[in-house]
Amino acid sequence: MPVISDDQLGEIYSFAVQLGKDAGKLLMDGAKARFAGTADGSSDIAFAEKDNAVDIVTQTDEAVESFIQQSISSRYPDHKFIGEETYSKGASRDYLIDSTTPTWCVDPLDGTVNYTHLFPTFCVSIAFILDGRPVIGVIYAPFLDQLFSSCEGRGAWLNETQQLPLIRSPIPSIPVKAPSGCIFACEWGKDRRDRPDGNLHRKVESFINMAAEIGGRQGKGGMVHGVRSLGSATMDLAYTAMGSVDVWWEGGCWEWDVAAGIAILKEAGGLVTSANPPEDPSTAEVLDASLGSRLYLAIRPAGPSHSETGRQGQERLVREVWKRVRALDYERPGI
Amino acid sequence: MPVISDDQLGEIYSFAVQLGKDAGKLLMDGAKARFAGTADGSSDIAFAEKDNAVDIVTQTDEAVESFIQQSISSRYPDHKFIGEETYSKGASRDYLIDSTTPTWCVDPLDGTVNYTHLFPTFCVSIAFILDGRPVIGVIYAPFLDQLFSSCEGRGAWLNETQQLPLIRSPIPSIPVKAPSGCIFACEWGKDRRDRPDGNLHRKVESFINMAAEIGGRQGKGGMVHGVRSLGSATMDLAYTAMGSVDVWWEGGCWEWDVAAGIAILKEAGGLVTSANPPEDPSTAEVLDASLGSRLYLAIRPAGPSHSETGRQGQERLVREVWKRVRALDYERPGI
Repeated sequence: MPVISDDQLGEIYSFAVQLGKDAGKLLMDGAKARFAGTADGSSDIAFAEKDNAVDIVTQTDEAVESFIQQSISSRYPDHKFIGEETYSKGASRDYLIDSTTPTWCVDPLDGTVNYTHLFPTFCVSIAFILDGRPVIGVIYAPFLDQLFSSCEGRGAWLNETQQLPLIRSPIPSIPVKAPSGCIFACEWGKDRRDRPDGNLHRKVESFINMAAEIGGRQGKGGMVHGVRSLGSATMDLAYTAMGSVDVWWEGGCWEWDVAAGIAILKEAGGLVTSANPPEDPSTAEVLDASLGSRLYLAIRPAGPSHSETGRQGQERLVREVWKRVRALDYERPGI
Repeated sequence: MPVISDDQLGEIYSFAVQLGKDAGKLLMDGAKARFAGTADGSSDIAFAEKDNAVDIVTQTDEAVESFIQQSISSRYPDHKFIGEETYSKGASRDYLIDSTTPTWCVDPLDGTVNYTHLFPTFCVSIAFILDGRPVIGVIYAPFLDQLFSSCEGRGAWLNETQQLPLIRSPIPSIPVKAPSGCIFACEWGKDRRDRPDGNLHRKVESFINMAAEIGGRQGKGGMVHGVRSLGSATMDLAYTAMGSVDVWWEGGCWEWDVAAGIAILKEAGGLVTSANPPEDPSTAEVLDASLGSRLYLAIRPAGPSHSETGRQGQERLVREVWKRVRALDYERPGI
């Protein structure tokens, strides 16, 4: 594996931030063209269906991935590139990130449904991976003009000026009665099959457990402070790094959905482990999630309380979530 | 009732927009003070719990309402003022808006839980009501720097420059297979009682019907394109006016949560009716929601298709939602 100096890493970080800004601008240009009805000449069409937008969105998605891939390959020809669009067209679902090659893992457009409807929480997600670990993350949501970025050892940032988490003097501890008092982010996702005990029903059962009053749901009621769904795994992770979300729980994501978000969240002091509860949630070790595992439970950065360290508080919250959620059924060859 | 000329209405509109910007800035100042840990001197406290934030939030909420109330009463001493904070402290839950007095209906902070956690979708909501009807609406979400505003006859706007809905050349029609293809916004709310057939379970049953595959849920599956929860009724309405949300369905809101949003959505071309399905959803008249009814179903602005007008498409979607949702149990004296 090539040695990358601290100076070189800083240079790659600056490049990645600029790339995120440029790619986000391309996404926003595509959106603005639709405001005016010019993207596909639809201003000439008397009657429009929003479904027509899907082709335009796919074109933008592919164009932005090409732009990112070409920018990277001309600047860093030895680096590997894994992108959502190119990957999706291949037949394999293998995990392609290894520990030998510096690798870029990119989703040109996370929150595709949002982008189709011009719902503001869509973004570009760019991660740089060394030794199998995301060390640089850049997320830019152009409609919201929110840029999240991090580099190992250099902190995590909102718009390059506000260090994450937002509240940091001191960083709040995990509430004593968590998940009560927490913001819980979750997504309904694409698997909507109405099968008994299928993913949709397991998810919803978990959501209700987290939301219901304390004492409800045969003792599983978590009475979270709020349930939020933004339609983007990447934005969920970014908001967890801000400290705005306390818990994000999801299955079915791919590595390009989460690599940059995990880099930013971990650099901010957050924790990412598996969504699926172990046999004994009270005692099992809280391991880092594998990047390609498709099952993620993220906890915001946390400071210490009088009785526990920040990490102890985070692990306590992990266990409280594990006690309330169902295992989800998402597979991955080779993981 | 005093006659208000078009010029006077324009003057009130400008005043309301500036008031929204100023009030939103106060909210953001309160948030930023917490970034630095200075709002309550908490930088001196070694261990912080997020719950401590609640007092600060209440103080800001009350301070912003006072600022708005005083600004209005010094500029328009004859106008009535109904604010969330002052109202909530009273014993009555009566509907206080009448058709004789020009009235301001204000929520200084919608999305209180979001503000507590610094989750970005919080906002100030200001409506001006004539003859019982919201004719001016101003919503400002300072973290996102999104300002929504409208005045009857003058259009609805994002940040004063982008007319709503965002896509308007032409405005998309309602999808043929709606609610399939739609973004559905809904909130879990505060009533988390785990009672059989209580509001929580009726809501979740409705959410699942809207989300499940076509053919699922004994034919009720709506296969919406996405389910979103932002934790603010006001922001849900604003995003519906943008066209980013197709359907918002909710019970339990109060008039200050929705008055400005309804003004903006209707001026953009949207429709607001009751959340609760009538006896025959297929044939019942689609009536405008009463402002104080606490039950709302909002549909985005829609253009015509080859086979129906925009309004016909909206009513079709209303009926498709009514067929899939449960009636919610929220009461209101005098409505």
